[in-house]
Amino acid sequence: MAFFDLPLPELETYRPHVREPEDFDEFWTRTLAETRAFDLNVTATKLNTSLKFVDSYDVVFSGFGGHRIKAWLNLPAGAEPGSLPAIVQYQGYGGGRGYAQEHLLWANAGYAHLFMDTRGQGSGWGSGGHTADPAGTGASGPGFMTKGIGNADDYYYRRVYADGVRAVEAIRTFAQVDATRVSITGASQGGGITLAVAGLVDNLYAVMPDVPFLCNFERATSLIDNDPYHEITRYLAVHRTHVDQVFNTLSYFDGVNFARRATAPALFSVALMDGICPPSTVYSAYNHYANDNRAIEIYPYNGHEGGEFGHKLTQVAWLNRQLAQSTTRTPNPTRTRT
Amino acid sequence: MAFFDLPLPELETYRPHVREPEDFDEFWTRTLAETRAFDLNVTATKLNTSLKFVDSYDVVFSGFGGHRIKAWLNLPAGAEPGSLPAIVQYQGYGGGRGYAQEHLLWANAGYAHLFMDTRGQGSGWGSGGHTADPAGTGASGPGFMTKGIGNADDYYYRRVYADGVRAVEAIRTFAQVDATRVSITGASQGGGITLAVAGLVDNLYAVMPDVPFLCNFERATSLIDNDPYHEITRYLAVHRTHVDQVFNTLSYFDGVNFARRATAPALFSVALMDGICPPSTVYSAYNHYANDNRAIEIYPYNGHEGGEFGHKLTQVAWLNRQLAQSTTRTPNPTRTRT
Amino acid sequence: MAFFDLPLPELETYRPHVREPEDFDEFWTRTLAETRAFDLNVTATKLNTSLKFVDSYDVVFSGFGGHRIKAWLNLPAGAEPGSLPAIVQYQGYGGGRGYAQEHLLWANAGYAHLFMDTRGQGSGWGSGGHTADPAGTGASGPGFMTKGIGNADDYYYRRVYADGVRAVEAIRTFAQVDATRVSITGASQGGGITLAVAGLVDNLYAVMPDVPFLCNFERATSLIDNDPYHEITRYLAVHRTHVDQVFNTLSYFDGVNFARRATAPALFSVALMDGICPPSTVYSAYNHYANDNRAIEIYPYNGHEGGEFGHKLTQVAWLNRQLAQSTTRTPNPTRTRT
Amino acid sequence: MAFFDLPLPELETYRPHVREPEDFDEFWTRTLAETRAFDLNVTATKLNTSLKFVDSYDVVFSGFGGHRIKAWLNLPAGAEPGSLPAIVQYQGYGGGRGYAQEHLLWANAGYAHLFMDTRGQGSGWGSGGHTADPAGTGASGPGFMTKGIGNADDYYYRRVYADGVRAVEAIRTFAQVDATRVSITGASQGGGITLAVAGLVDNLYAVMPDVPFLCNFERATSLIDNDPYHEITRYLAVHRTHVDQVFNTLSYFDGVNFARRATAPALFSVALMDGICPPSTVYSAYNHYANDNRAIEIYPYNGHEGGEFGHKLTQVAWLNRQLAQSTTRTPNPTRTRT
Amino acid sequence: MAFFDLPLPELETYRPHVREPEDFDEFWTRTLAETRAFDLNVTATKLNTSLKFVDSYDVVFSGFGGHRIKAWLNLPAGAEPGSLPAIVQYQGYGGGRGYAQEHLLWANAGYAHLFMDTRGQGSGWGSGGHTADPAGTGASGPGFMTKGIGNADDYYYRRVYADGVRAVEAIRTFAQVDATRVSITGASQGGGITLAVAGLVDNLYAVMPDVPFLCNFERATSLIDNDPYHEITRYLAVHRTHVDQVFNTLSYFDGVNFARRATAPALFSVALMDGICPPSTVYSAYNHYANDNRAIEIYPYNGHEGGEFGHKLTQVAWLNRQLAQSTTRTPNPTRTRT
Amino acid sequence: MAFFDLPLPELETYRPHVREPEDFDEFWTRTLAETRAFDLNVTATKLNTSLKFVDSYDVVFSGFGGHRIKAWLNLPAGAEPGSLPAIVQYQGYGGGRGYAQEHLLWANAGYAHLFMDTRGQGSGWGSGGHTADPAGTGASGPGFMTKGIGNADDYYYRRVYADGVRAVEAIRTFAQVDATRVSITGASQGGGITLAVAGLVDNLYAVMPDVPFLCNFERATSLIDNDPYHEITRYLAVHRTHVDQVFNTLSYFDGVNFARRATAPALFSVALMDGICPPSTVYSAYNHYANDNRAIEIYPYNGHEGGEFGHKLTQVAWLNRQLAQSTTRTPNPTRTRT
Repeated sequence: MAFFDLPLPELETYRPHVREPEDFDEFWTRTLAETRAFDLNVTATKLNTSLKFVDSYDVVFSGFGGHRIKAWLNLPAGAEPGSLPAIVQYQGYGGGRGYAQEHLLWANAGYAHLFMDTRGQGSGWGSGGHTADPAGTGASGPGFMTKGIGNADDYYYRRVYADGVRAVEAIRTFAQVDATRVSITGASQGGGITLAVAGLVDNLYAVMPDVPFLCNFERATSLIDNDPYHEITRYLAVHRTHVDQVFNTLSYFDGVNFARRATAPALFSVALMDGICPPSTVYSAYNHYANDNRAIEIYPYNGHEGGEFGHKLTQVAWLNRQLAQSTTRTPNPTRTRT
Repeated sequence: MAFFDLPLPELETYRPHVREPEDFDEFWTRTLAETRAFDLNVTATKLNTSLKFVDSYDVVFSGFGGHRIKAWLNLPAGAEPGSLPAIVQYQGYGGGRGYAQEHLLWANAGYAHLFMDTRGQGSGWGSGGHTADPAGTGASGPGFMTKGIGNADDYYYRRVYADGVRAVEAIRTFAQVDATRVSITGASQGGGITLAVAGLVDNLYAVMPDVPFLCNFERATSLIDNDPYHEITRYLAVHRTHVDQVFNTLSYFDGVNFARRATAPALFSVALMDGICPPSTVYSAYNHYANDNRAIEIYPYNGHEGGEFGHKLTQVAWLNRQLAQSTTRTPNPTRTRT
Repeated sequence: MAFFDLPLPELETYRPHVREPEDFDEFWTRTLAETRAFDLNVTATKLNTSLKFVDSYDVVFSGFGGHRIKAWLNLPAGAEPGSLPAIVQYQGYGGGRGYAQEHLLWANAGYAHLFMDTRGQGSGWGSGGHTADPAGTGASGPGFMTKGIGNADDYYYRRVYADGVRAVEAIRTFAQVDATRVSITGASQGGGITLAVAGLVDNLYAVMPDVPFLCNFERATSLIDNDPYHEITRYLAVHRTHVDQVFNTLSYFDGVNFARRATAPALFSVALMDGICPPSTVYSAYNHYANDNRAIEIYPYNGHEGGEFGHKLTQVAWLNRQLAQSTTRTPNPTRTRT
Repeated sequence: MAFFDLPLPELETYRPHVREPEDFDEFWTRTLAETRAFDLNVTATKLNTSLKFVDSYDVVFSGFGGHRIKAWLNLPAGAEPGSLPAIVQYQGYGGGRGYAQEHLLWANAGYAHLFMDTRGQGSGWGSGGHTADPAGTGASGPGFMTKGIGNADDYYYRRVYADGVRAVEAIRTFAQVDATRVSITGASQGGGITLAVAGLVDNLYAVMPDVPFLCNFERATSLIDNDPYHEITRYLAVHRTHVDQVFNTLSYFDGVNFARRATAPALFSVALMDGICPPSTVYSAYNHYANDNRAIEIYPYNGHEGGEFGHKLTQVAWLNRQLAQSTTRTPNPTRTRT
Repeated sequence: MAFFDLPLPELETYRPHVREPEDFDEFWTRTLAETRAFDLNVTATKLNTSLKFVDSYDVVFSGFGGHRIKAWLNLPAGAEPGSLPAIVQYQGYGGGRGYAQEHLLWANAGYAHLFMDTRGQGSGWGSGGHTADPAGTGASGPGFMTKGIGNADDYYYRRVYADGVRAVEAIRTFAQVDATRVSITGASQGGGITLAVAGLVDNLYAVMPDVPFLCNFERATSLIDNDPYHEITRYLAVHRTHVDQVFNTLSYFDGVNFARRATAPALFSVALMDGICPPSTVYSAYNHYANDNRAIEIYPYNGHEGGEFGHKLTQVAWLNRQLAQSTTRTPNPTRTRT
Repeated sequence: MAFFDLPLPELETYRPHVREPEDFDEFWTRTLAETRAFDLNVTATKLNTSLKFVDSYDVVFSGFGGHRIKAWLNLPAGAEPGSLPAIVQYQGYGGGRGYAQEHLLWANAGYAHLFMDTRGQGSGWGSGGHTADPAGTGASGPGFMTKGIGNADDYYYRRVYADGVRAVEAIRTFAQVDATRVSITGASQGGGITLAVAGLVDNLYAVMPDVPFLCNFERATSLIDNDPYHEITRYLAVHRTHVDQVFNTLSYFDGVNFARRATAPALFSVALMDGICPPSTVYSAYNHYANDNRAIEIYPYNGHEGGEFGHKLTQVAWLNRQLAQSTTRTPNPTRTRT
């Protein structure tokens, strides 16, 4: 069916209970502490490109486990110290950071733009990734969804989300960047990482998850049979007795639980015919998002491609408006995590 | 099969005879004369974007039949008159010009960049097209390949190729552009239009067809059953007695015949697992291309996506090198068309 | 799923509100007036066939815009003037009129039978079409559903429906035909045209839409992802902001709105597993049909093929019965259109 | 690939050796003798149709094993005794005789037309079959290709081919029919039965196999993986040690071996993109056909649908020409079978 | 969708009314009487295998119509007379008994194990079948679901179910077997046969239908379009007027009607993503099963493969427990069939 | 096409040159030395099963990097010390060791049977795996084929092949096993591991690779587009400049290079329609295999399933014959590796 999920009016009020472990905050406090035990150690090597208006840097920083994570940084040429609002962007499933020159919009719009590689990924499509994931896995299926799914400590996305947090810290170290105006974004998996980082990092300026993945795993796997969510289903079809254990692991990584903790203004997008990240899973996070300054762009006749480039322009415009209003903007409510 | 076409060594010497009508040059001389009977009438409206380094214009000019064709022009901010080398780019099948801001690479690299809409198309994927095709068609199938295929005068690509020629003329009218350094490019259908324009316009600076479509129709339809070439097959499966007539029409539009007349330096690309534009059809044009200053980038393990963004960087680098050498470059041989 | 639409009992009472523009009648009054401004100019050329009992004619008449529309007319050999009840038949999507000899049933059953070509179509399957559509289009996708969809005046089916009306007028000009006993039929797209003509032409004898297409576009595109309805979805996936405009255009062509104006007795058919023309869209028209002398043949375990040849026999039998009762039949209620 | 089989010039001289059992003629002589041991016992019940020019009869006769085989007979109304040339037609795989009124062309063209049901089939598509196959089968897969494949005596097509022979005998019993002018035809499986009957019955007037199936089984199964030929492959994938036995059984039923014995003039058709009955298997029979008065219509861009209705008109025209020339025609060479 | 059927809580109480013919018991009493009119005539030929702990026999017995049905019997080496509990197993659709050595688990676990071939099947997958079905069929489609579907007497599964009953009788004739401790099992079609035999044979020790097929045909065909249930749909798509007749025939063979008559303890399995034997059809039988000593193993994330080998171990463990408790077990309620 | 690879006569002499690195032997000598630097440390825990004739053990040993590798050991009950010939079996791609009781054939035939888990795998199908792969990976695609493909030292199969060698060493530690009569086998990936171990371990008794995977990677990826070989193609489609590096890495793991070094008698199998492990890649290894006492079982009409259970019986019979002849058998030629 074309519209296979809940009708839009039901989506708009769909606010399901999603499994949340008691030690969710503790787990992440511990994870980030372990991660920060390694020096961030940001290095940046200027690229020799033929671009006239954008300076590109090959950035490396220490993510989870001190593992070296790569990213591209594009800066508008000739920026003054502390002058630039900044964007950290996370990539979709299977993709890599590709080429620095692929990502010109934000720098042309006057932003410092850090595009993070996703560890171990970047060989599925596009122009490639360059970041290893040194951690192994228990018995797993093809793909990244079941790597280390045996427990939360070993789960692949524990490392990725921690990397995402460190990317924000990395961009804040650059002289040209105004560290108080760092926003984050990403589509699909990048949207899922965006939500996680939104729930883990204070004082983000804005959060723009685009057709986010990694939300409400139980509904997703019950509703669709497309990858990557379906990787979980295939795993459970073999490990028939691990259902509860698997969803317990995943509950530490559910975008809904992060959305409940996220406080920066947010612009979501959702596509109503999205068979990869079904709209009800996106609304699960959106309707739990913990800041009323949130909006969602709806693409009714689109699949997972959602708003594509047009939505990027919407993001630029929305963020420019936020910045224009920012002198009067109320600071994000401070969240206390014990 | 993975490699379904000729092995690479055979491709490299594959130079098949392709049907060419006796009045090919006459047909195109007449077509361009008819087209030029309408005033080019270039208009350019500056867009209000949030880009800091690129000025974008909504350009309209008169193509075939005087029909108004739309394009985006992106100029590096602050360019001096006559200073800019230029690129005209044609779009792939089914796509439209989308947003001006989608196409930032060439302007960031210091080129004036005109991105032409393809008449009637732009509703198949991406961000949309905005140019009507006011001409009708005889009995045709879904898609553009069989519109007006009953004879060369009515065939859809007659209008499109003529539009492509006019796009070169249009960019040459801009003050910032150095009219002697206009190059053309495009991928897939855009590569096919590139070849046609390369065979129809003198004094192009360089030509960069990327996995070009619209070459050696008879081989293509005998080899693969993927659209858009397969639209022709489906047409012939209904119009069983029109085989000769159809391939006669198509011979006026075959990229191979244009390649035989093209004289500017060229950079092609080809993907050896390309089931949409099979490698032997690309080499049909490449091996007939009428300038020894030609090169072809081979992507052995790719399908129709070919080199993607990496190839764009290759194009920029190659064209920059051509320009760097140009003070000493021998002018293109002049082709005389009666 | 096998039965993917509403259960039969719900279908039988499904009478949804469908968008109808205020100027619907005005639009069509104007369209037909413009069409009739051109002389109908029916020509008929007798074919040299080897058939012994059926005389076949190649008929041409002026449709929308005065464009010349082709049709086959098959007459039972040796018919007396004014003696023949008549059938006008419209073709399914992508098909053409093919060969005159393909359509022998109605003539063998004693009817004059006009089989109308659909302009621009006839290259998708079968034996081919022969009628051009001289009108162009704005940006559109492959297929006919989005040609001119930018507004009702330019929309492809405006021309086709007007052609369909003129086909009825054309058959009434033949001496052998009893102009008071002209019925219309067609399957799928042919059924959609049938409904449109049923709502536009007074004094039809009977109307037999078979698994009709072009009904309740909003439900259809929300329910299924099969072509041709899905052509609309793909268009909206690119032209994301045109949703309202597109459905506004389509509302002038919705079979439901024509059914509400149709007054001749009707025999519908519907297939409950029809993924091309879902049953609820057929019932949308059927349950709004404005004559209680209506029936619907249900094919529960069929897809879009519906009742196939068996249903044609059902049509012949039903129409024969109508004719047998006609001496006593109440005339169709006259509908007044201002 | 689009053209997946041999190129046309090679097809035209492709005359492969096909396995033929030593006792081929003996087997069929015995089979027909056993079949004829049952009385033909033709019954014909006139149908009550609404057709004005064609009289339809429900015909039943005794086929193999005396089993009762059904057929439709359509006669041009008012035919004189002995006046009618006749056609026996066999149905494609999975289809049934459907409705008598579905098959009006030949009767309209002035022929007696017998349309034979295929025993046990007629539930796969179309309007249904009505003839049982009372014989059982050894272990077999879904479909008819492996029923009784354990040995030639039990094989399904032994019964079907014998039925086909009896159908010719049946039509010759009708008073209106000129028994010296009986031709046979059929498409796909119907073409295969046509070839078999052509090799088994003397004094046929003409033979018109259309994209025939059941020819050169070893090549077919080595070349394609589409049903129905692929049913054999699936069987052999389970019964791994039966390869030789299976092809030995099939050699008694190979259209090539019948073509070598067939002596009536013939009109074949072949489609060069036919993935169901590949062109080389059709040419295997055609190039072995034992009468130089043979022709083949080539449909280069078609799949298994071949020439569809247009080819039927070609058949009518070709057969009419044969009949027009028949006063001077040399009688078919007599074949002696010991 | 992933979970396409009812949610689990609804499944657990889903107890639909399923069509049951008035003469259901009479039909089966008559069928078994007719079957038993032939001598069971069990023969057993010891195989020469290289197995050290299992003795294998090629068993043949007379099933429906006295037709000879094959089976493998595996016995633990050196068993005492009357010592062995026994299992009869039925095969899934399209499979055959294969090799005796393929089925070692039950014998290794200490059971006599008879694996019955399914007549006419065994050429679809696996290692093959060896049992003919000498009965013919009316017009039918590919596959076994529509063989003889014209009436209950001729229907294919009448013969198969009767064979299944006789298999139980056959194993009881072996000296090593304790005839009071014979259980039956099978997956998919084998599960359907298990249910039928459970409803037809008294004093079975236990019944273990695994993802059973052949239950609640009307729901199955309305819900899914996968074979083998879909064979029925395709038949009805051709035989459009036979809907009631077909479901009447099938009602004599519906596992639900047998479950209502079955009295032995039962262990079912069901897979919630099973698109071949949808969970609601399995629960239709389970919730009607006429013994409260029943259990069902649920595999939530599996398709038709269900619990695979792990479920076999569950069966062994469950049956061992039943046997361990059996000294105290209440005898099965005696069912009276008039 | 059905037979898509070379014809059988060409396969039988197909002995292509396959890339082999100069330091191949050195690499593996080093790898095994590093592996053996960890104590083998075999542990075996007897399972509590309900099997009467087979004793099952949960075996763990140290593989590459000292990582703990799991396996099942099944022993015929009551075996004398040193009495048992033994088999080590490796699993196919994506599978795990599942349950000990799944693998009863070899133990029933009188062999000690060790079934090795494949590290990190076992979640794709079947009953699951239980062995972690603690090593990470560079940028990689879904699946195991590109894990660590950046260089031979990091490549996934380096670890797996070393594990396979250790499995042979592990089974030789069991008292019941005759260490001079250890053979190895496996299908698909298991066949590829078998070949590797055959080339790395001296004094194996026999080697039985079944439709082996991991042979002649360059041909495989050029010929087919099915996983898992296609994982390599997808990787190269992203990492376009790594072609040479990737095939250099793979050359250390090519079954052909191991076959050239393998000296134990061998029984291969190949399926001629195998689109996963194409026959020419299997013959690449077979025709290079360095012992003339080799045989290959050909399954002409099978895909990757090959001979299935029947081939297992062929293996048992062949190995039993080897053992029966072994008193007179010439010892394997000793290979010297520097």
